[in-house]
Amino acid sequence: MLKVLFLPDQKDFEVENGTTIMEAAQKAGVYINSLCGGNGVCGRCKVQVSGGMVLADKDSISLLSKDEIKEGYVLACQARIDRDMEIIIPPESRLEEQQIMMGEGVMDYSKPERLLVPKVPADPLTFFDPISKKIYLELQPPAAGDNISDADRIIRELRKKTDYQDFDISLHCLQGMAMKLRDNEWKVTVTIRRNNDSWLISQIEAGDTHDRNYGLAVDIGTTTVVVQLINMNTGNVEGVAGSYNLQAHYGEDVISRMIFACGVEQGLDPLHRAIIKNINNLIEILTSKKGIDKEQITAIVAAGNTTMSHLFLSLTPCSIRLDPYVPTASIFPQIEPRDLGININSKGILETIPAVASYVGGDIVAGVIACGIADHTETKALIDVGTNGEIVIGNNDWMVCCSASAGPAFEGGGIRNGMRATRGAIERIKIEDNKLTYRTIGGSKPRGICGSGLIDCIYAFVTNGIIDNDGKFKTSSKNKRIIERDDERQFIVVYSQDTETGKDLTITESDIANIIRSKGAVFAAIKSLADYVGMKFRDIDTFFVAGGFGSYLNIPKAIAIGLLPDIDPKKIQFIGNSSLMGARMALLSTHALERTTKIASMMTNIELSTYLPFMDEYVAALFLPHTDRRLFPSVEYW
Amino acid sequence: MLKVLFLPDQKDFEVENGTTIMEAAQKAGVYINSLCGGNGVCGRCKVQVSGGMVLADKDSISLLSKDEIKEGYVLACQARIDRDMEIIIPPESRLEEQQIMMGEGVMDYSKPERLLVPKVPADPLTFFDPISKKIYLELQPPAAGDNISDADRIIRELRKKTDYQDFDISLHCLQGMAMKLRDNEWKVTVTIRRNNDSWLISQIEAGDTHDRNYGLAVDIGTTTVVVQLINMNTGNVEGVAGSYNLQAHYGEDVISRMIFACGVEQGLDPLHRAIIKNINNLIEILTSKKGIDKEQITAIVAAGNTTMSHLFLSLTPCSIRLDPYVPTASIFPQIEPRDLGININSKGILETIPAVASYVGGDIVAGVIACGIADHTETKALIDVGTNGEIVIGNNDWMVCCSASAGPAFEGGGIRNGMRATRGAIERIKIEDNKLTYRTIGGSKPRGICGSGLIDCIYAFVTNGIIDNDGKFKTSSKNKRIIERDDERQFIVVYSQDTETGKDLTITESDIANIIRSKGAVFAAIKSLADYVGMKFRDIDTFFVAGGFGSYLNIPKAIAIGLLPDIDPKKIQFIGNSSLMGARMALLSTHALERTTKIASMMTNIELSTYLPFMDEYVAALFLPHTDRRLFPSVEYW
Repeated sequence: MLKVLFLPDQKDFEVENGTTIMEAAQKAGVYINSLCGGNGVCGRCKVQVSGGMVLADKDSISLLSKDEIKEGYVLACQARIDRDMEIIIPPESRLEEQQIMMGEGVMDYSKPERLLVPKVPADPLTFFDPISKKIYLELQPPAAGDNISDADRIIRELRKKTDYQDFDISLHCLQGMAMKLRDNEWKVTVTIRRNNDSWLISQIEAGDTHDRNYGLAVDIGTTTVVVQLINMNTGNVEGVAGSYNLQAHYGEDVISRMIFACGVEQGLDPLHRAIIKNINNLIEILTSKKGIDKEQITAIVAAGNTTMSHLFLSLTPCSIRLDPYVPTASIFPQIEPRDLGININSKGILETIPAVASYVGGDIVAGVIACGIADHTETKALIDVGTNGEIVIGNNDWMVCCSASAGPAFEGGGIRNGMRATRGAIERIKIEDNKLTYRTIGGSKPRGICGSGLIDCIYAFVTNGIIDNDGKFKTSSKNKRIIERDDERQFIVVYSQDTETGKDLTITESDIANIIRSKGAVFAAIKSLADYVGMKFRDIDTFFVAGGFGSYLNIPKAIAIGLLPDIDPKKIQFIGNSSLMGARMALLSTHALERTTKIASMMTNIELSTYLPFMDEYVAALFLPHTDRRLFPSVEYW
Repeated sequence: MLKVLFLPDQKDFEVENGTTIMEAAQKAGVYINSLCGGNGVCGRCKVQVSGGMVLADKDSISLLSKDEIKEGYVLACQARIDRDMEIIIPPESRLEEQQIMMGEGVMDYSKPERLLVPKVPADPLTFFDPISKKIYLELQPPAAGDNISDADRIIRELRKKTDYQDFDISLHCLQGMAMKLRDNEWKVTVTIRRNNDSWLISQIEAGDTHDRNYGLAVDIGTTTVVVQLINMNTGNVEGVAGSYNLQAHYGEDVISRMIFACGVEQGLDPLHRAIIKNINNLIEILTSKKGIDKEQITAIVAAGNTTMSHLFLSLTPCSIRLDPYVPTASIFPQIEPRDLGININSKGILETIPAVASYVGGDIVAGVIACGIADHTETKALIDVGTNGEIVIGNNDWMVCCSASAGPAFEGGGIRNGMRATRGAIERIKIEDNKLTYRTIGGSKPRGICGSGLIDCIYAFVTNGIIDNDGKFKTSSKNKRIIERDDERQFIVVYSQDTETGKDLTITESDIANIIRSKGAVFAAIKSLADYVGMKFRDIDTFFVAGGFGSYLNIPKAIAIGLLPDIDPKKIQFIGNSSLMGARMALLSTHALERTTKIASMMTNIELSTYLPFMDEYVAALFLPHTDRRLFPSVEYW
């Protein structure tokens, strides 16, 4: 065994000779970036070996510059550990946990308890009733007056121990069951899993193993994949692990991945395999960290947008992209994890949260579950802003939803110095008394500006009279930071001497136009949806903002630039990774899981591309904060 | 290709060089006996090659006498065809179709029609609603105002074309479905199969294939296995094939097979594989004869006694045999045929009719369905006599049942010259004016006496004053045929010069005692059951007699010896292979299939081994016709 010390984490770990640095890091719980899934082709996992002593073959240095090679850089996925070593993971190769929405411990389940019937209507949060349970049984041995079949004996006892009546039993369980019961003095633990309206007995173990039952809640994001390991007896989160979606190798966003899947011969396969590998890697990390046998994981609930769900299940996503935007399925069958090659108990259950339409997916339905929108009479709204902005408005009686193409601006895409919210990204900017201050993620030298920083910028520009309400730099402004460069007017946020790249960090007029288009699309979608159901914003009881971008948002500024409607900021709640939260709720509440299908079918999807009022709203929203002053009465810079 | 002519059938057939004679016979639809499944160890398949020219290696003659070898006999399963030849199948190697209950065309389904709801209570016969259907769909392509998912589009059309609302769709179907729909102009045929309370879309084929849908009804008897090929669109029987149960190699009856399965290391496997091979062989025969692709068979319903069902599904039968007689399961899960290695469409459905208890199996439940016992207010009875006699009495409100160990006498077992009802068996015997006449099956020289012949014998003996009411030869009888041989009194039925074996065919006093014990057990079971529910025999509306033995029975004689109760013979109906008939009904009527579970749970099983009144009834029945004269008022020889 060789000793490895990861810096700057100061985590040390022992590995076998020949282990790759990437594998060692995964086992040690140190996150290293990777897009290509360890194939040595994306170059994102470069690390520095302290002292430069490593088995550096051609593959491990193929994508590096001569200087980097001299300094001891290698690709973590290719270089193998052959001696004790210290490994420095540079900021650009770090996969920051903080930037992946791992979900919060928001849910508060009561102790495991019998299910109360009738179940509806009520808050699914109150039902602790996992979709896969292990129940320890001490059976009465058969006797002359009691000679029902072994299967009926088990079912009879389950009826006593639970409030359920309907049980089926798999052929696999029946085979060999007679011996198992008799060899273990009729003391066994049965795993039951929800299957349509009944429970399927899917596994029988000798003795009492009921305390070893885990489940996984999985959020399959376009950018990141997060897996929570849940104790199915308590509902507690035992661990959480996230990584970038390995599919990024085949395209950064949903559209480009669809193009890959549909344009290349057998293009679906690598995308499907990438996400399965992603999830298996995260399962490996979680279980090895906790010393849990993967066989003890008996259930998975996955949530993702419609395209991600298709790729996850190996369904062709091609028609999702093309007018009239038709998915293969919106409700997904219950399957066994082995059907997809996922490494947990092969007799487990795998549920994929249903979608509403091609651009309102299971992640949003999970969000609706997490926010309890369908469980209350008050009207609430959910907004999830990423490349697409998905919006839901509704209550326990009705729900409408839509998806607006916001563009990648909020994730730093299409912005000259934009970047994702990772280390070195400027996340806060203020201009007060003509003095510009900023804060970067991780406190390091700025490398670019992320979504929340961009919103701050626009707010600072418009309130300081640097730009006009249409987003153009005021010709009257005498601000020294406004320059003309490369035929475009731009604002220097950080001068070259303070940046990591050594170049000025600027925001151009077309960057500003992009952001205004993005915020305009989102606002127009919210407004169209509210108008569609004849509601004013003030009639909406709570406004949930989900997703990574939302969590770093400054609400008053988001209102001030016209991204969010001008309502009482107290009505706005950040909910974090609501997709993951909803997946966990479905895992722990059969009622919640079964509600997802009902909820998905309740949600009326408004296809904005063919909904004429949307275009007018969009044009009206391409202004700071909006063309219609009455919509933003509290905004004072107007 | 080589030409083969099978004699005496005069069936000719072309086969490839190297084909075994057995394979050729199966393909030609000529039945040759086999117990060992073609392993060359049972010697039952010997055939004579006309002219004696055959590739006769050691294996093909290993079990034959020198004389047989000289005469050109070989084992059909070992000898390979290497030239044109004529093959004579001797009587003892013929598997007579007539001796395997192939089921009758009793059912009369109306043309395929929509299911009428509500469905219960009514005769399942009237519902033509196969458990697996192919439905051709011409879908509207998606459009801007109609962009539901492909799966929802299919389900919407299915809802229009059927009266069902609930559909699920398998992951397998969803994968690749988008292309299949678009490549075929939205014209596809979907296979739906019953799955709990909904229908599962299990297969999608391009174009219109709905007319190519078949199902199999399977009767797994301890002695014989019969498969009916059913057209699922019309309900018509397209073909039927039967063979001896290959498990016979491991034991003739249920008990000895259980002993093998439980006493030998991995003993269950060969028994399981034998029955699967049996069924696959019969499927091969049926499909090749009709030129049907096995992929077009989408459903199987199998019925058998509890032990046979266990061996079929590879479930340990060990505790069935031991007090308190507990099976692993009485309700069996729906599975896919490939789970058992059965060669039909891998996405098909396989249902096994549920059992009531260890000795009242799915064959009896199928019989109850076939006789409509649970569908009428009048009380009816079903009796199935084999090694066990199973009896059901009941109506749509209640049913009781039991199983009595009748012993193998009725199947020719335990009788010195007893044999099964195959060619050469004496099936009819009369003694009139001191003259004995008989008839053999197939009209050939007698080889032994089968069940119906034995009943005739007892009747002839008792009515001619040859035996007493206790079954002993009357010392007063001067009949020349009564002799003392091997320390036992016996009656010569056929003298040596007229038998095939060249030896006298006799019936001994202990043979008679065996038959009386068998008939006594059956009658005592019927009587106990009727008493249990407080009914007189005359209150029973119809008395169905099922099974191979029943069909050859002379009713008045069966009453006269006290096997069947003394009721109006018009109330007694032979129903043939009611197990197969019930399986076919369940295949063609979802309602009937779903009724089987209800019926099995309605049937109260009386365990005769612990039911005290039975023993008294049994002792009272060991007399011709019975100790209690009042029970047989019409029997005149008394």
